[in-house]
Amino acid sequence: MGDFVLKGNICYSVSKTEIKACPHSYIVCMDGKSCGVFEKLPQQYESLPLIDYGNRLIIPGMVDLHIHAPQYAFRGMGMDLELMGWLQEQAFPEEVKYEDLDYACDAYSIFAEQMRKSATTRACIFATRHWKATVLLMNLMEETGLITYVGKVNMDRQAPQELCEEDVEQAILDTRKWLEKNRGKYRNTMPILTPRFLPGCSEPLLEKLQEVRKEYDLPVQSHLSENPEEVESVKKLFPNAGFYGDTYHKYGFFGNDAKTIMAHCVWSTEEEVECMRGNGVFVAHCPASNMNLASGIAPIKRYLELGIKVGLGSDVAGGQNESIFRAMTDAIQVSKLYWRYVDSAWKPLTFEEVFYMATKGGGEFFGKVGSFEEGYELDAIVLDDSMQPYPQELSLRQRLERSIYLSIDLNGIYAKYVAGKKVKCS
Amino acid sequence: MGDFVLKGNICYSVSKTEIKACPHSYIVCMDGKSCGVFEKLPQQYESLPLIDYGNRLIIPGMVDLHIHAPQYAFRGMGMDLELMGWLQEQAFPEEVKYEDLDYACDAYSIFAEQMRKSATTRACIFATRHWKATVLLMNLMEETGLITYVGKVNMDRQAPQELCEEDVEQAILDTRKWLEKNRGKYRNTMPILTPRFLPGCSEPLLEKLQEVRKEYDLPVQSHLSENPEEVESVKKLFPNAGFYGDTYHKYGFFGNDAKTIMAHCVWSTEEEVECMRGNGVFVAHCPASNMNLASGIAPIKRYLELGIKVGLGSDVAGGQNESIFRAMTDAIQVSKLYWRYVDSAWKPLTFEEVFYMATKGGGEFFGKVGSFEEGYELDAIVLDDSMQPYPQELSLRQRLERSIYLSIDLNGIYAKYVAGKKVKCS
Repeated sequence: MGDFVLKGNICYSVSKTEIKACPHSYIVCMDGKSCGVFEKLPQQYESLPLIDYGNRLIIPGMVDLHIHAPQYAFRGMGMDLELMGWLQEQAFPEEVKYEDLDYACDAYSIFAEQMRKSATTRACIFATRHWKATVLLMNLMEETGLITYVGKVNMDRQAPQELCEEDVEQAILDTRKWLEKNRGKYRNTMPILTPRFLPGCSEPLLEKLQEVRKEYDLPVQSHLSENPEEVESVKKLFPNAGFYGDTYHKYGFFGNDAKTIMAHCVWSTEEEVECMRGNGVFVAHCPASNMNLASGIAPIKRYLELGIKVGLGSDVAGGQNESIFRAMTDAIQVSKLYWRYVDSAWKPLTFEEVFYMATKGGGEFFGKVGSFEEGYELDAIVLDDSMQPYPQELSLRQRLERSIYLSIDLNGIYAKYVAGKKVKCS
Repeated sequence: MGDFVLKGNICYSVSKTEIKACPHSYIVCMDGKSCGVFEKLPQQYESLPLIDYGNRLIIPGMVDLHIHAPQYAFRGMGMDLELMGWLQEQAFPEEVKYEDLDYACDAYSIFAEQMRKSATTRACIFATRHWKATVLLMNLMEETGLITYVGKVNMDRQAPQELCEEDVEQAILDTRKWLEKNRGKYRNTMPILTPRFLPGCSEPLLEKLQEVRKEYDLPVQSHLSENPEEVESVKKLFPNAGFYGDTYHKYGFFGNDAKTIMAHCVWSTEEEVECMRGNGVFVAHCPASNMNLASGIAPIKRYLELGIKVGLGSDVAGGQNESIFRAMTDAIQVSKLYWRYVDSAWKPLTFEEVFYMATKGGGEFFGKVGSFEEGYELDAIVLDDSMQPYPQELSLRQRLERSIYLSIDLNGIYAKYVAGKKVKCS
């Protein structure tokens, strides 16, 4: 891998409360990792090739901790429903189609292509229960240059028959086929165990998946305490559990044994929050989805202050698009409504906090990712904000904030690097 | 003005509950007005020039009932404040600059250019208190081809001295100069009386403005019951008023004598709502701004069911951008949170309702505007959704919904017509 230097207006999070903004500075990349950001290029790096991005902004790539690839096809449609109805009427009928590999190829090619063009450099992706289509998706994601976790979904109830595993035995067989098929195959694409959510998973299925998880040492992703109706149904299905996540915990899917992402956490109880915190569970905060499906507002300010690990998720197609820029501003906006209507003890999220979650916060799931501090894997995107002219002088911090608020990612990313490798994004 | 026919996939509101979606159909435009939408072109129109937009979508132009031109320069910045603090720290210091006509020209040229490119065909615009810069803005808006109301702002307190009228006499003198300067000058640009908001207007100023309003028969725009802190301050400033809008009403600025738009109406009392309804006051619903400034959520579903006239506003820079597409989806999203957290008696807004507000609802302020029904002035935008490919068959209604949710307006409008006249938008 080639070493190089990038020059431009560099911004990155160092903590939840601080963004470093370095005008006309240098990032040095060696072996795919940052050697730090410098106002003046140190002499020992002067012989490296330098790419000068002029007056453009260079920021860490976005991390999307929660997105459903098969739902990309119907994003932004049928939005007048709540979670459980929306799953039955929108999501499940679409996901059924991924049994057909021709359709899966058409749909996943569009998804992969759009992810390539987006501001995202790392993502945790749900596929469907179909192992062949999931392998196909992994092949396509590998071609994009992004670094991703992709999960074949496991569910054996509460969905159309074609979308449920035939039985637990077949589920495990399919899951193993999928895992064997991608073992050692990819450089950038990794499997992640993906029990869909508790209403869709029987205990026998969870029990057997636990064995698979241990055998392959897999991380886990799922949904948690998203919508009141769903939370009620989980209470009925698992009457002996102390809280929703308790059942995940019982089977080793709650950070206890496995690195875990739980999407949403809007309605988590005190006990659940404590268990998440204690076990280092990552929360994928998906504010657009939580609005679109009328789920509510997750108390993210509180999670941050408790030291819970939080990143952002687009949750396409609960969320309408893959923009993590949009997720940042949505997160701030809903936190203001939370403060106004739900609990004024928790102040609105700041821009610093959401930028942290979108980069370094979510990036931690992938290792040292999401910042330009020394030793971090170099994921970077270059932004051209010149199509949004302004008449006054602006600081770099102001240009960063407006670029995010104005969703300039939707007009394309000027350049993109993942772990020190340039990837095509236009 | 040339008569013509447009062909394409045509969608428009006929009522709050119905969008007509007409694949591969025709709109006939004569004398700037729609002669209706036809599946097959009637013989009498066959000789008119036909512009075929192929598989693209043709929808009514967007109506923005509330936007601040001088705040465009700092949109998407300094978003971590509430209304009153934000005005003092962000809005007022910027607005002071419009005393300088060179700066005003730079800044307003950017604003006018971006409005020209946007999905908006009609807008109601706040300028600043500076009459010369307001004339300059009107000249620039006239060049865009959009049809707009533009208001010189009146305020005489609670702002930096440079932003307040010197005294009531000077305020009226300046207001008259501005009105005389644009009398009979424009085809598409009209003055609108613009007392900023009650915290910024003394009673002597309001009293004198009432005379000017009558003399020039002006419509009125202002702010109403936006933020709890503001509402409290108005109670103290006008202790004898029954409600916030009561003072506007007293001076004939509340639909009683004048066609009136009031922005926000988040915290309106029962009495105020009844007065708005009875007087035909238009509400400009600005959901992004109401989130960004932590103002709250306006009970729009209730207003619609009461028969109150409601349109959408971008409220730049309370809102971060000028997209009325975004305002539509924001309006649905916050209405879901209103239902979840504030009052479950009011169901979330539907896509049909917000599309109505963005077009025909707000358009009513301009006359027969915002629909393609026979007799409506022909404001149309042409959308190219091909940059967002999809693998399945979609209905036209689905393509419309996803185009709005995916903010495809931010990638540019393919073509734009205002009152039957084509305007440049790229």
